Amino acid sequence: MLRVEHIGVAVKSLENSNNLFSKLFGEDHYKEESVEGEQVRTSFFKIGETKIELLESTGPDSAIGKFIEKRGEGIHHIAYEVSNIVSEVERLKNEGFIILNEEPKKGADNKLVCFLHPKSTNGILVELCQEINASFD
Amino acid sequence: MLRVEHIGVAVKSLENSNNLFSKLFGEDHYKEESVEGEQVRTSFFKIGETKIELLESTGPDSAIGKFIEKRGEGIHHIAYEVSNIVSEVERLKNEGFIILNEEPKKGADNKLVCFLHPKSTNGILVELCQEINASFD
Repeated sequence: MLRVEHIGVAVKSLENSNNLFSKLFGEDHYKEESVEGEQVRTSFFKIGETKIELLESTGPDSAIGKFIEKRGEGIHHIAYEVSNIVSEVERLKNEGFIILNEEPKKGADNKLVCFLHPKSTNGILVELCQEINASFD
Repeated sequence: MLRVEHIGVAVKSLENSNNLFSKLFGEDHYKEESVEGEQVRTSFFKIGETKIELLESTGPDSAIGKFIEKRGEGIHHIAYEVSNIVSEVERLKNEGFIILNEEPKKGADNKLVCFLHPKSTNGILVELCQEINASFD
């Protein structure tokens, strides 16, 4: 795994949290993006080589809405950049990790993403991500 | 803030989780360290410029033990490296964040650390850290 690509944070209000994280980091978010398939609106900050991705639910059935209902606002997932998501998922499956989607799907920020079940990763929802076009052209 | 210095993960057994994270990352932890004052044993992995710090409780009153009792294993805190922890704490205090210890204290990995209360940071325990000797010689 190459780096912590981003830390996903579940928030109730993107507007309020944009304001809060701007104060925390001393600089503004640099983009917003909606992911229709996941029913979320996202906002990105950058600290070193890692992004902080704020996630606001836009629909009643979104994973983020359910997460907040159950656990409140906070860290939702950690995403690691990998150079080859297909082979990495295969490797982790063989190691016994529970893969939530073996077929990479389109995430925010021009990425292909796969998730590992927190049950198999010490309670942490782990995302693997690879930039689209890096090898899926 | 310069980078995500580390992600702190509360675990029940350092041995089991060292094994699990070695499989996840495809490489071994590179050091272990005890922090007596905090009643924890820690283990470190490195992904890009960020460390993953596993934290195991060694005493009944440790923050990590209480965290696991309440929420189970999982992400405990996010630590950001800052170039001047004293001025950064001052800045954040003025922005309205709740500082848990205004006087920096000695953490693991040769760091001075201050924590922000999750109540003021969207449910995330935030650590600020600065390498000792960088300017505290």
